[in-house]
Amino acid sequence: MSSAFDAVDVICTKRDGGVLSDEQIDWVIAAYTRGDVAHEQMSALAMAILLNGMTRGEISRWTEAMIASGERMQLPSGVLGGRPTTDKHSTGGVGDKITLPLSPLVAACGAAVPQLSGRGLGHTGGTLDKLESIPGWRATVTSAEFMAQLRDVGAVICAAGDDLAPADKKLYALRDVTGTVESIPLIASSIMSKKIAEGTGALVLDVKVGSGAFMKDVDNARELAETMVALGGDHGVTTVALLTNMETPLGLTAGNALEVRESLEVLEGGGPEDVVELTLALAREMLAAAGLDGVDPADRLRDGSAMDVWRRMIRAQGGRPEAPLPEARESHVVPAPADGVVVRLDAYAVGVAAWRLGAGRARKEDPVQAGAGVVMHAKPGATVRGGEPLFTLHTDTPERFTRAVDVLAEAVTIAPDGTRPDLPALVIDRVD
Amino acid sequence: MSSAFDAVDVICTKRDGGVLSDEQIDWVIAAYTRGDVAHEQMSALAMAILLNGMTRGEISRWTEAMIASGERMQLPSGVLGGRPTTDKHSTGGVGDKITLPLSPLVAACGAAVPQLSGRGLGHTGGTLDKLESIPGWRATVTSAEFMAQLRDVGAVICAAGDDLAPADKKLYALRDVTGTVESIPLIASSIMSKKIAEGTGALVLDVKVGSGAFMKDVDNARELAETMVALGGDHGVTTVALLTNMETPLGLTAGNALEVRESLEVLEGGGPEDVVELTLALAREMLAAAGLDGVDPADRLRDGSAMDVWRRMIRAQGGRPEAPLPEARESHVVPAPADGVVVRLDAYAVGVAAWRLGAGRARKEDPVQAGAGVVMHAKPGATVRGGEPLFTLHTDTPERFTRAVDVLAEAVTIAPDGTRPDLPALVIDRVD
Repeated sequence: MSSAFDAVDVICTKRDGGVLSDEQIDWVIAAYTRGDVAHEQMSALAMAILLNGMTRGEISRWTEAMIASGERMQLPSGVLGGRPTTDKHSTGGVGDKITLPLSPLVAACGAAVPQLSGRGLGHTGGTLDKLESIPGWRATVTSAEFMAQLRDVGAVICAAGDDLAPADKKLYALRDVTGTVESIPLIASSIMSKKIAEGTGALVLDVKVGSGAFMKDVDNARELAETMVALGGDHGVTTVALLTNMETPLGLTAGNALEVRESLEVLEGGGPEDVVELTLALAREMLAAAGLDGVDPADRLRDGSAMDVWRRMIRAQGGRPEAPLPEARESHVVPAPADGVVVRLDAYAVGVAAWRLGAGRARKEDPVQAGAGVVMHAKPGATVRGGEPLFTLHTDTPERFTRAVDVLAEAVTIAPDGTRPDLPALVIDRVD
Repeated sequence: MSSAFDAVDVICTKRDGGVLSDEQIDWVIAAYTRGDVAHEQMSALAMAILLNGMTRGEISRWTEAMIASGERMQLPSGVLGGRPTTDKHSTGGVGDKITLPLSPLVAACGAAVPQLSGRGLGHTGGTLDKLESIPGWRATVTSAEFMAQLRDVGAVICAAGDDLAPADKKLYALRDVTGTVESIPLIASSIMSKKIAEGTGALVLDVKVGSGAFMKDVDNARELAETMVALGGDHGVTTVALLTNMETPLGLTAGNALEVRESLEVLEGGGPEDVVELTLALAREMLAAAGLDGVDPADRLRDGSAMDVWRRMIRAQGGRPEAPLPEARESHVVPAPADGVVVRLDAYAVGVAAWRLGAGRARKEDPVQAGAGVVMHAKPGATVRGGEPLFTLHTDTPERFTRAVDVLAEAVTIAPDGTRPDLPALVIDRVD
C-alpha cells in the first residue's frame, strides 16, 4: 500500500461501529474526489454510515472535507456595497416556489442573497427549472457576474459551479443509485458543505415534514435540522431552521411556469396565503440572522420594491420579466367527486402528478416542460361542489393525462359539508 | 424503468431490515452477473446484508441464484466407474496442506474427489499454488479430462472454470475491496454455491477457528458451519462440518513446495502427527458421507495405495512427481530466545511471515515463490534450548527476511522447563 490509509480499513472502521478519525475522513473524501477510492468502496462506506451513523464530530469533519474538495467562496459585505449575506435552503417540497419571491424580497431589505440552486429530480421541482421557464433567463453566471449582481441587485439565483464541493456532487450522484440517500449525516453534510462553501454568512433552513417531503416524520426532520444548525455554527455561519408542513402542497400550483406566475402574484402583494406566510417568515429569519433588524419585509412586498429587485435580477441573467410565460398546449380538468369540505390534499400525489405531466424529470439528463403541471382549485378547508373543477392539469403531451389523473384519484379527501378540518400550522417548529 | 425490479428498491429492502423476496434475489444476482446492476449498487447491498443479516431462506435462495448464474455439473457415480463423489472444503488456515494427501487417500478408498480449488490471497496459502510448485503440473483441465481423471484416478485438484458460479466470482472480488467479506450469509453462500455447482454428492467442511483462521471465534465458526450444512441439505448434498483448531499452524511447514514435501511424508506413512490426524478425520467423514463404510483410510496410507493415486493424479495433469521440488535460494535461521517449553505458536504470525517471504500474494495478479516459506522446528509442547533453531525461513529474495523475522518475534511463547501446556484438541466440534 502506497498510502498511509486504505479504503477497506476506513470502511471496516465504520462497518464495525467505530468512529472515523479526522485523518481517515480527510483522506477518504480527497481520494474519492480524485478517483483513488472507487465508487463501489464509497457506496459500501455510505451504507455503513447510513446504518451505523456518525458522531457530531465526524459529520463536522466530513462536511469540512467536502468543502475542502473544492473552492470556498469569500463574500465579505465590504465588496458587496455593505450588504451582509444571507441565504435560505429548503429540503424540497411540492409547490415550493418560495425562493423566487423570497430572494428579491430579502435583497430589497438590504441583504445580499447568494442562492446557488439545483434542478429537480423526482416529484419535487427545482428552482432553476422554474426560472428557466422565463424567456431568455440563464442559470449560469461567471464569478465576476455573480459578485457584480450580488452587489448591484442584491440577489443571484444560479447554478453552482463545478468547483463548489465537487466531492458532494460525486457522492450525491452515487447515493442516488445505491439506496444511501436517507442518512441524516449524509444529507446534512451534503447540504451544508455547499452552503458553507458558497460563502454565505447567515443561513435559514426550511426543513419540510410530511407526505410531500423527504422527511415524513417530525422527529427525523428535527434531528436533521439540529444537525445542520450545529454544522453551520461549527463553520461560522449563523444558522436557523424552521420545520414546516409539507402534507399539503404550498400554494395552488405545482409546475415550472405555473409557479413563476404564482410567485409574481406574491411580489405584486397578492398570492396564496400560505406562500405569503412562509415567504415572510423565512425573510424575517434571514434578515435577523444577517443582523438586519428593523426592516419589515411585508412593507417591501406592498411598496413594489421586491418586484423591482425581481425584475433586475431576472434581467441581469438575460431574462425578460415582462415577456409572457409559456403555457402548455393541452389542459384537462379533474372535477370534485362530491359536495363537501376538502380535509386532505396530499402533497406527494400532487407532486407525482406534476412530474408525470412533464414538470419534473426521472433522470438528470431529461428535459422538463416549462408549461406542465397542476393547478389546484381548492385547498384543505375549502368547500367544493361535485362536478366543479378540483384540479386543472397542463401538459404538452396529452397522453400523460391518464397517469396523472390516476395518482390524483386518492389525493383528496372530501368530508360532509360543515366539517371543520383540523388544519395544521404551516411553521411547526424553529431550531437555532 | 424497463425491468420489474429496481436495484435501489432491492437495496432499500435489505437496508431497512426487510426480507428479500425470491424474485428480488433471482433478479439482482442475474442482473449483477450480466452488468445491469452496477458494482456500487451490489457493494451497498452487500454492506446492508453484512449489517442486517439474511434469513436461512434468503441465504438458500441467494446460493441457488449464484449456482444458476453458471453451469451446474452432473457427476453421477455411473459415469465414474461406480465411484460416489465426495469433496472437502477448508475455510483456510496456515500450513493447511490437508487437501494434498487427503484427495488421493479418499480416492484410494474408492471415492471420486472433484476438488475445484482456489489460489491463496493474504496470509493463507492456496492449494493450486502449492501444487504448481511440482514441476510440470498444471491447474487447468478440460471438462473431458476432468471426467476421465475422476473416473480413472479418482481425484482431480484443479482450477474452477469460468462457468462455475460466475456471480460468486464477481461478487467475491467486489467484497474483497469493499469491506464486505466478513458476513456469514455471504461467506456461506459463496463457498456452497461453488461446491454445489461442482456436482459433488457429499461434502465435508473444515471450518477453522483461531488466530490463523478467518473465524477467530468458535461461536461464529459454528454459525458458519451450521449455515453451510443446512445449505448443503437444501440442495441435496450430504454435508458435515468439523470445527478445527487454527491457533497453531498445521504441521511444521508453511509455504508452497515446503508443504508439498510434508504432504509426501504423510503419503509415505509418516509426517507430523496433527496433519495425519486431521487428514484421517476428514477422510473418514468424506467416506461416511459418500456411503463408503468399512474402509479404513489409515490402511491406505500404510500400504502405499494413497501414494500411488497421488502419483497418477499429478501425472494426469502433466506433473512429474519424482522430480525434485524447487528450493528457495536463501535461508535464515531464527533461534530460540531461551530454554523452555513452547506453549504458544501463533498461526497468524507464521502465515504472515510465509507471505512476506514470498509464499503468498498481496494481489490476485502477483506471482508466488515456489520455495519460499517457514519451517517450524518446534510446536507447542516441545522443549527448546536457547540458541537452537526455532524457525528456518526460505526465500529467493533475502531482503524479505527482516520483515518476516519481525512478525515472528511475538509469535512464540516459551515457558520455563517443566511447564505442561494446555494443548487444545485439533477437532473442536462436529456439525451435521
